[in-house]
Amino acid sequence: MSKKLINHPDDCVDEALEGLVMTHLGLRILGEQRVVVHESVRAANGKVAIIAGGGGGHEPYAAGFVGQGLLTAAVCGRVFSSPPAGAVLAAIRAARSSENDGVLLILINYTGDRLNFGLALERARLEDIRVKMVICDDDCALSSSFKAVGRRGLAGSLFLMKAAGALSERGEVLDSMVHVLEEMKQSIGTIGASLTSCSVPGGETMFRLEDDEFELGLGIHGEAGVKRMQMTTAANIINEMLNRMTDSDSSCSFPLPSGSSVALIVNNLGGLSIIEMYIAAREAIKQLESREVKVVRCYVGHLMTSLEMRGIQLSVLRVDGDERNWWLSLLDAPTSAPMWPHPLYHDRITPEKLSDEGYRWDHHFENRGPSLSDRGQIAMKNAIHAAASALESNVDLLNELDSGCGDGDCGSTLNRFADAVRQMDLVLEYPCTVFHQLCHLMESKVGGTSGAVYGIFFAAMAKAFEDSDLSEDVLRWTYASKVGIEAVMKYGKAEPGDRTLVDALLPALEHLHSHPKTSINEILDELLAASTVAEEGAEKTAGMRARVGRASYVNEDLVTKPDAGATAVAIWFRGFVSALDVEFREPEPEPEPEPEPEVVPEPRSRSSSSSSSSSSSSDEE
Amino acid sequence: MSKKLINHPDDCVDEALEGLVMTHLGLRILGEQRVVVHESVRAANGKVAIIAGGGGGHEPYAAGFVGQGLLTAAVCGRVFSSPPAGAVLAAIRAARSSENDGVLLILINYTGDRLNFGLALERARLEDIRVKMVICDDDCALSSSFKAVGRRGLAGSLFLMKAAGALSERGEVLDSMVHVLEEMKQSIGTIGASLTSCSVPGGETMFRLEDDEFELGLGIHGEAGVKRMQMTTAANIINEMLNRMTDSDSSCSFPLPSGSSVALIVNNLGGLSIIEMYIAAREAIKQLESREVKVVRCYVGHLMTSLEMRGIQLSVLRVDGDERNWWLSLLDAPTSAPMWPHPLYHDRITPEKLSDEGYRWDHHFENRGPSLSDRGQIAMKNAIHAAASALESNVDLLNELDSGCGDGDCGSTLNRFADAVRQMDLVLEYPCTVFHQLCHLMESKVGGTSGAVYGIFFAAMAKAFEDSDLSEDVLRWTYASKVGIEAVMKYGKAEPGDRTLVDALLPALEHLHSHPKTSINEILDELLAASTVAEEGAEKTAGMRARVGRASYVNEDLVTKPDAGATAVAIWFRGFVSALDVEFREPEPEPEPEPEPEVVPEPRSRSSSSSSSSSSSSDEE
Repeated sequence: MSKKLINHPDDCVDEALEGLVMTHLGLRILGEQRVVVHESVRAANGKVAIIAGGGGGHEPYAAGFVGQGLLTAAVCGRVFSSPPAGAVLAAIRAARSSENDGVLLILINYTGDRLNFGLALERARLEDIRVKMVICDDDCALSSSFKAVGRRGLAGSLFLMKAAGALSERGEVLDSMVHVLEEMKQSIGTIGASLTSCSVPGGETMFRLEDDEFELGLGIHGEAGVKRMQMTTAANIINEMLNRMTDSDSSCSFPLPSGSSVALIVNNLGGLSIIEMYIAAREAIKQLESREVKVVRCYVGHLMTSLEMRGIQLSVLRVDGDERNWWLSLLDAPTSAPMWPHPLYHDRITPEKLSDEGYRWDHHFENRGPSLSDRGQIAMKNAIHAAASALESNVDLLNELDSGCGDGDCGSTLNRFADAVRQMDLVLEYPCTVFHQLCHLMESKVGGTSGAVYGIFFAAMAKAFEDSDLSEDVLRWTYASKVGIEAVMKYGKAEPGDRTLVDALLPALEHLHSHPKTSINEILDELLAASTVAEEGAEKTAGMRARVGRASYVNEDLVTKPDAGATAVAIWFRGFVSALDVEFREPEPEPEPEPEPEVVPEPRSRSSSSSSSSSSSSDEE
Repeated sequence: MSKKLINHPDDCVDEALEGLVMTHLGLRILGEQRVVVHESVRAANGKVAIIAGGGGGHEPYAAGFVGQGLLTAAVCGRVFSSPPAGAVLAAIRAARSSENDGVLLILINYTGDRLNFGLALERARLEDIRVKMVICDDDCALSSSFKAVGRRGLAGSLFLMKAAGALSERGEVLDSMVHVLEEMKQSIGTIGASLTSCSVPGGETMFRLEDDEFELGLGIHGEAGVKRMQMTTAANIINEMLNRMTDSDSSCSFPLPSGSSVALIVNNLGGLSIIEMYIAAREAIKQLESREVKVVRCYVGHLMTSLEMRGIQLSVLRVDGDERNWWLSLLDAPTSAPMWPHPLYHDRITPEKLSDEGYRWDHHFENRGPSLSDRGQIAMKNAIHAAASALESNVDLLNELDSGCGDGDCGSTLNRFADAVRQMDLVLEYPCTVFHQLCHLMESKVGGTSGAVYGIFFAAMAKAFEDSDLSEDVLRWTYASKVGIEAVMKYGKAEPGDRTLVDALLPALEHLHSHPKTSINEILDELLAASTVAEEGAEKTAGMRARVGRASYVNEDLVTKPDAGATAVAIWFRGFVSALDVEFREPEPEPEPEPEPEVVPEPRSRSSSSSSSSSSSSDEE
């Protein structure tokens, strides 16, 4: 028995109707009948009542279309079974609002529905109720071998129901309403296709489609379609559907000549994902338009389903004759029915994209905040390049460390940054601008989680440099690196001990913070010491349990190797600091100290060193 | 690779967004970004822009919620992947309508989204754009072992987005908006359950659930849930969900004390059928109310899906504090966003049923048209009972004939009619009333296709008797039986040769029609002859191809046995006519003719004989 979220097969339709009535304003169930009416149904309004219905399993049809401007009542049967005539009669009696108003039954063409609605109609006539019936048979799938009962009724019938509801609101009388609908129904065609079957509650799957098959032209009760075909792209499936619909060799064909206009329904048969549904809608519109058929309205959604079937139906109403504006005005008329799709109106079905010119991530960097000395600029450039080279030399190591719990591409990812740095002509005059550029490279060249983490770090530092009104350079760098690491920890929700780059970067920065120095060589000594602290921090991640990032989802067990992201920090930190050391180290014995550079290099290195790598480099959501 | 209605895995999100934009008024795509905005996005309005988003595969979230009163822009990534920060930045730049207005990012809590939206936020701040971020973490499933990154964000975030959109429309400033949302998000909880997994386009099913399992508390990317449980009823599954949500032992628990009020979202995860979705909605509301939690709003639909996953999420927003009316007014504020469910407003979530008193199929029969003589009444009663007895004697035969192509219950079905006839005290004074009563029995006691076919026949005859202004009794009966068989053929779309009861009944009636007689014995002779014609007609259905009814769908091959429905006609016709013969046959030798009875019996028999049986007795739609 198929797995379903139900209580008991016998109660499915009743409970679903109850759920629908509970969650949509103004709907009511009529006593012990499977009939849904609007709560204002008995307010005599001198209008023709519109009743539709059929078996259950097609929800939200028909109950979801009860409302002002659409159905007055919906009559439901058990799953895929016609409602009993007694329920139809009860609906007829309840729906006519006064003694003299007519009642229109709109059916989708199935024998059981014709007979049960027909019986109710004959019975109602015995009570002198004026009842008429319009039967929609819009299926374009069956070929010349189709049955004596005629084409099946499918989702195209919704056009008739919507038009009838609008006509009723306008005060149209029964006979002329039937006249309009009988004409309109000649202009309706529907074709379906499905990737899967469905199963009646309590039953087994009605038929089986192989993994490489789809079925063309099937109905909404698991009836066989026209043919099974090799699974292919959405484009090809939609093309087959439209070809079948318009195939002039078929006695059911529905011509869509070049130059015609249509209203289109893209009906989800129940289980098709929303992403697929919209792909199908796009494909249908594009292909109709490439056949020079203009799509002037489009309604997409779960309208008349076949339980959990993963398929669609395309229904078209041709509106290119004299009736065009008249019919469209009926479709566009307002309705309170909860499931009628939001009214859509298109003169131009494929809206042009808005330009994103001026909104894209760009190279425009404003120079703000303090500037760097010439020597400081040279040192900065060398240190950044040295950090990049260090990463480049360790690509394989970092990839290998990442392979246990990440995507195994931590090294390759960071190497994209190294490449980009070397190819870029960095503007070095302002620290703010330098970090802005590094952020840009991280966003545009690295991407994913690593790119975002480092990007956040650099962006926050850039902003900190810009905002800071601290007078001391050293304090400015300390402040900026603090802001940067805090932003990373905030957005990444990474704490020390979570097996991330924080475990290497944070202790290194804290070491510098707790060892304030003023002479250049002492500062360089502490930077080198901080580099060792970063390496020790990275080592300690071996054995830590990952708590954030992909690694935390992939494997809860202890991981024996160090974290790749933390190791990457240790590597580039050492490279960066070593370059500064080469640039600034003063000869020890000389007693006379050189003047400090305008911008102290070590906080600069501190800050760059706080750029951090993550334990995971893929862009998981 | 899983079967999907797509073109290429890489194009899925782009094509779906394009489809969504093509089919919903006012939405536009922003250049080469996966960003959907409203076409009026650049109209400076002095309001805070609301941006949300995340990976693809959750459609219609987030793009379907772009519209006035909800999102200003939606940013989408690839399936289940966070959007790049560049796209978020482009959305931020495009969405702020004037230089001074703020931008609010509403995220669902995932690391990738936090990092990429965070990077864009930091980057936007470098341009002096005022941006803030609210992160929704509404998942109540994970227990104390949940990750450092906190609870996941799920469909409950839609409450925040709707409230933010409404606040923006009211001209609320960024900071106070954030304040409201940070408070509101403490009052949101979500729990999910699913019957199946899902599969990323181009990939395999992400995990496998057995046919007898469901999974509780899973996320929207195929992440593992809290536990797998034995498949059970919808009531038990909803109960487990609510228990888990409110489990005070869980560090994620969300208390729903007796007396509290909630707004409820019932979110279809993608592939759950609509009938199941409404069953779940009903169950959730009923169980919340039985826990004395009042459901004051309910939103049902596909809101934030997980591809084709067949599951649901329940999200609640507690609105029982001082904020109640304030928060509800935000939810109720109008929006043009196409996918926000129709506004629902309930004081009383379970509306009482409307009474169907006076609408039910009933025993009320008006005596109209011509009446029957006393002798005619006796003959009518005897003939009807004889027809019933004949059917009763042939139950097994009819069932056997039906078993080849129908449900095998044709005999049993018609025997229900025979039983009912014998138990009913038929009112016999008017033919109209007699047929009205027989119609009632067919509807109420037999049902299905057979009940409907005979019901239509009797109802049409009753109406014909009532309407007829023909002076001659014989003509009246002929007219009524013609109207009856025509109604059957019309609603059933059955023609001679279609292997139905028409093949026995129509030739018998035509025989009587073409052999008009006036003397009683001659009339009886022709009735007996017509009975033989009916039997011959039934025999001829052996070998006919079924063209209507269920048999036509079940088996297209020639069927070697006679049709059960046609055979049933031959059986009861013979019984009916024989009883009339016993009642009315006059001794041959006597030369002096008796006066005709007031109502000629043979047309009466003709008419009853036209009551027909169908080839299929189940109530297929």
